[in-house]
Amino acid sequence: MSYTLPEFLAHAIAMEQEAADRYLELADMMEAHHNDAVSTVFRDMCRYSEMHRDSIRERVGAIELPKLRSWEYRWRTPPEVGGEEGFDYLMEPYHALRYARENETRAEQFYRSVAVQAQDAELRRLAKEFADEEKEHVAALDKWIANTPRPSSTWQEDPDPLQPRGGSTLPAG
Amino acid sequence: MSYTLPEFLAHAIAMEQEAADRYLELADMMEAHHNDAVSTVFRDMCRYSEMHRDSIRERVGAIELPKLRSWEYRWRTPPEVGGEEGFDYLMEPYHALRYARENETRAEQFYRSVAVQAQDAELRRLAKEFADEEKEHVAALDKWIANTPRPSSTWQEDPDPLQPRGGSTLPAG
Repeated sequence: MSYTLPEFLAHAIAMEQEAADRYLELADMMEAHHNDAVSTVFRDMCRYSEMHRDSIRERVGAIELPKLRSWEYRWRTPPEVGGEEGFDYLMEPYHALRYARENETRAEQFYRSVAVQAQDAELRRLAKEFADEEKEHVAALDKWIANTPRPSSTWQEDPDPLQPRGGSTLPAG
Repeated sequence: MSYTLPEFLAHAIAMEQEAADRYLELADMMEAHHNDAVSTVFRDMCRYSEMHRDSIRERVGAIELPKLRSWEYRWRTPPEVGGEEGFDYLMEPYHALRYARENETRAEQFYRSVAVQAQDAELRRLAKEFADEEKEHVAALDKWIANTPRPSSTWQEDPDPLQPRGGSTLPAG
């Protein structure tokens, strides 16, 4: 599919707002775990998302934006959560970072696909710029993941991994 | 796991609010499809969820409730949406009804599991009552699903069905 500029901007604002909300939740959760280092990472990413959202809003100016459905921009539910085991799963820092990474990757893929299919030069430029920003977020998260202990030795046999398998190693950060 | 009464009430309020928000979205979407009959179903279910939320809030009174993470109560993303195919899937009434049914079933299972494991008699009574209400919603949705045309003849071979397989037929409504 291809997007118009207003459709694209509406998605971008909603996705940045969603990211900011989720990073704030993750930061609070890590603070409750007394993991101040990872909490600080998430608070920084929350602030970047808010700044990006605000700069997109400036770009929107007087353009009228379409209304979106919640599932068009929301972060996915962490795979560990929900289902029969209930709702009270306590995420470890490692899971929280992987969860954030998964959603940043999804955002990057969205922006990249819009850029590829854009008819409009300005839309293509913006979408590519946003995809590159998300890629930087993924790289930053990869560095943190590499330095975060895995919560159990059975992680590699996790039957429900956070990412589609392409190998058991993470990309270099 | 088992829940305290405040934890349970916090989940119940958040889940009813989430259901109301999603039913309103689905109603708007069906209205945009010029399907006023299904839109009316969703508006009614939105109102029931709001009424239930309000009655739980009355029950809460002065009890202090814990703060929940968004993924502890949110509806799942429709399986048809997201992934590489992008964000603009237009749901047919049939998909919207099945999506709602999946989430109502999940709510019923949550309430039922709390009732089974409850130590406190009042918690057990409430959880059972809420589970029974969700079961009525599922039955109401089943009646609508039975009367709604399937959008394509290949639906039965859907590689990503809305519910775990237990057979190809829906429960009687």
